Amino acid sequence: MGVCDSELADSWALYQRLREQTPLVQCITNYVAMNMTANVLLAAGASPAMVHSDAETGEFAALASALSINMGTPSPQWAEGMRTAITGARGAGVPWVLDPVAHAATAYRRGLVAELLALQPAAIRGNASEIIALAGAAGQGRGMDSGDSVDSAAEAAQQLARAQGCVVLVTGETDLATDGQRSLRIVGGSHLMPQVTAMGCALSALLAGFVAIARDQPLAAAVAAARVFAAAGQRAQEQAAGPGSFLPAFLDALYLLQPADLARCPATAS
Amino acid sequence: MGVCDSELADSWALYQRLREQTPLVQCITNYVAMNMTANVLLAAGASPAMVHSDAETGEFAALASALSINMGTPSPQWAEGMRTAITGARGAGVPWVLDPVAHAATAYRRGLVAELLALQPAAIRGNASEIIALAGAAGQGRGMDSGDSVDSAAEAAQQLARAQGCVVLVTGETDLATDGQRSLRIVGGSHLMPQVTAMGCALSALLAGFVAIARDQPLAAAVAAARVFAAAGQRAQEQAAGPGSFLPAFLDALYLLQPADLARCPATAS
Amino acid sequence: MGVCDSELADSWALYQRLREQTPLVQCITNYVAMNMTANVLLAAGASPAMVHSDAETGEFAALASALSINMGTPSPQWAEGMRTAITGARGAGVPWVLDPVAHAATAYRRGLVAELLALQPAAIRGNASEIIALAGAAGQGRGMDSGDSVDSAAEAAQQLARAQGCVVLVTGETDLATDGQRSLRIVGGSHLMPQVTAMGCALSALLAGFVAIARDQPLAAAVAAARVFAAAGQRAQEQAAGPGSFLPAFLDALYLLQPADLARCPATAS
Repeated sequence: MGVCDSELADSWALYQRLREQTPLVQCITNYVAMNMTANVLLAAGASPAMVHSDAETGEFAALASALSINMGTPSPQWAEGMRTAITGARGAGVPWVLDPVAHAATAYRRGLVAELLALQPAAIRGNASEIIALAGAAGQGRGMDSGDSVDSAAEAAQQLARAQGCVVLVTGETDLATDGQRSLRIVGGSHLMPQVTAMGCALSALLAGFVAIARDQPLAAAVAAARVFAAAGQRAQEQAAGPGSFLPAFLDALYLLQPADLARCPATAS
Repeated sequence: MGVCDSELADSWALYQRLREQTPLVQCITNYVAMNMTANVLLAAGASPAMVHSDAETGEFAALASALSINMGTPSPQWAEGMRTAITGARGAGVPWVLDPVAHAATAYRRGLVAELLALQPAAIRGNASEIIALAGAAGQGRGMDSGDSVDSAAEAAQQLARAQGCVVLVTGETDLATDGQRSLRIVGGSHLMPQVTAMGCALSALLAGFVAIARDQPLAAAVAAARVFAAAGQRAQEQAAGPGSFLPAFLDALYLLQPADLARCPATAS
Repeated sequence: MGVCDSELADSWALYQRLREQTPLVQCITNYVAMNMTANVLLAAGASPAMVHSDAETGEFAALASALSINMGTPSPQWAEGMRTAITGARGAGVPWVLDPVAHAATAYRRGLVAELLALQPAAIRGNASEIIALAGAAGQGRGMDSGDSVDSAAEAAQQLARAQGCVVLVTGETDLATDGQRSLRIVGGSHLMPQVTAMGCALSALLAGFVAIARDQPLAAAVAAARVFAAAGQRAQEQAAGPGSFLPAFLDALYLLQPADLARCPATAS
C-alpha cells in the first residue's frame, strides 16, 4: 500500500481533466463496438471519431489526442488502416492503445497482433485469457470470452508490460493495472457487464482518452479508466433489471458520476 | 395436435441447455444488426463472435458451435467471407443458418442467395415475403419489409424445407416452423417488434445457437427459438412505452425468461 | 414572419403523410449511425434500407423513395457504392440528401465531398462548422464536433443553398433551414442530444424521408424533419436521467409524437 499514492490517488482529478479537455479519441474498432464506444466516450466527456480507411487514418491520427486500435473484427483492409493510423500517430507523438480481441483465435489474428505489438502501444487492455496468451503463456480463452481469472493473469500482465514498456490493463471480475513495476487491483463493476457486448472495447477507447490527458502518468490513466468503468457499472446495476436496462443506466452513470461513486471502487496495490 | 409432443414439448429444456452450454455462435451479419445480435445472444445465454473476413472465417467456423449467415448488407468481399466460413463449418460438421434478407431486391442478392442455398443450410429464417420468393413463388416484399402474411407463406415454407432438406422458420405476427413434414405455429410477440430494427436478424442468430445444442432436433430448435423470442417480446411489451424502451426491456426479458413466459407462447400443430 | 405560412405551417400534416406512406429510405451511412438511423426511421414511420455495395446500390436506389448519403466513415469502396447509388437515384428521379460529416478534416474527405456536391443533392444537413466550411468559409470544427454556432452559419447556409440549388439544414442548439431565399429557425431539442452519437446522421436520413413525401416542398420538408427531432428531443429530455436513457426515450417520443409536441418547437422566419 501507499506505493503509488501520489500518482494514483486522484482518479477523480483525472476524470475532471478529461471532461474539461474533451480529448479527441480516434477509434479503429470492431463493428459491434462502434456505436456503443462512441456513446461511452461522449457520456464520459471525450470526443469520439471513428475513422478507419487508410485513405485518411494517418492524416487524421495526427490531429487526434489519442488513437484506439481494436482488432475485434479485423480484415486485411482494416489492418492497412490501422498501420497507417499508427504510423501517423507515432509521427505526431500521439499515444495509441491496443485492444487485442481474441488475438489467439486464428492464424490471421496471431499475425496481426504480433505486427501491432511491435508498433509500441502506450497501453494494452484485454481480458485475462488475451493477456496471458499475449505474454506467451497458455490460456483458456475461447472466441471473445475469457476462461481465465484476472489473478491468473497478474504475472503475465507484468511480464508483458515490462517486455513492451507499456501499461497493461487486465479486466474481469477484478481489474489489474500494471506498468511492470507496480500493480494495482480495482474492484467494483457489475455481474451484468459481461452480458453486454463491447464493454471491454469501449473501456479501451476510454483508456485512450485518459492516456491522452495524462501522458506522463499512464498507470494512473489506466487506474482511472478502470475505476470510472467499475464505478459506473456499480451504479448502473442498482437501477438495472438485466443487461438491456443496464446499458442505458451505465451511460447515464458515466455522465452523472460523482466522487463518491469512484470512492466505492478503490485501487489497491497488489 | 399431439403430432410432435415428444420432440417439441420442451422448449424450456432446450433453453436451459443453451444457457448451460453457451454455444459459440459465429455471425456474419449485417452492420445494422451486429451490436444487437451480440446483445441478444449474450442475454439469452449464448456466446457471440462476429468474424467476417475470409482471412479467418474458415478457421474460426471450425471452432464455432454454429454459424449464422445474414445477407442484410452484402458485398463481394463479405460474400467471400461467407463462402469461406460455410466451407469451414461444413468441413468440421458445424451447422449453419441462413437469413436471406431482402434476397429478391436486386440481381446481386438473387445471385448470392442462390449460391448460398446450394451450400445446405441446416435452417433458414425469413419473413413471409422472403420465404415465398425463396420457394420460387411471387411475393409482395419491398426492401426489408414483408408485404405478405405468414399464412400465405405456409405452403412455400414447407416446399422450401423439403427441397432444401432443412428447417424453415417464417416469422411475422404469427411464426411458422416446418421441416417440410410437420409444421407448427407460434403465437405471441409484440406489435412493437417490427418497429425495432434487426429483430429478425437477431432471431436467426439465436436459432443458430439452438441448432447447435439440438443438432438432431432442428424443428424443435426452431420452435424453441421462436417461442423464446415471442415470449420475451410479450413480456417486454408490458413494460415498453414504444420501440425505444422496448429493446432494453426485450433484452432484460430474454435474460430473465421463466417457464411461465414460454407457456404463454405455445406452439401448435397446423 | 408570415412569409412561408402556407407552405410551412403544417409540419404535422407532413409527418402524418410520412407515417401513411412509409417512404423507403436507402441509407449509405457510417458504421456508428447505422443501427440507430434504422431505429429512428422505423420509430418515425419510414422504412429503412441499408445497402452500400456498388454491386447493388444503383439498382436499389431506383426502387427507393429517397437516398441518404452520409460520409461519416468513408472509404474508397464505400465511395464507389455512393456514386453508383446517386447515379441510380438520379436516373430514376429519386431525391438524395447529403450529410457531409467532418468533410474538412482530411484531404480524402475534401475530395469526396467536392465530388458528391457536384451530383446535386436535394438537401444538405450538417452542423455549423460543416456548413461554413462547405460554403468555402473558415470554420472552427474539429473532427465530428461543431465549434461554431448556427447563427454564425446562417449566411454560409444561404449561400450554399443558392449555389447548390438545394435546401440546407444546419443543426445545433437552434436549427436553421434555408432554400437560399427564405430561412427559418427551429427551437427546441435537448442539451443531451450532442451527448448521444449519430443524432445528426439519423436526422439526415429522416430528412430524406420527408423530402420523399414532399418532393415539391423541400424547405417544408427540412423544417418538418427538424421540428420532429426537436420535439421528440424535448419530450425525451423530460424522461431522461442522462444520455443513456435519453436514446430509448427519444425513439419512444418519435413513435408517440403528438401535434402538441410539435407546437412547442415552432419554426420562425429569420
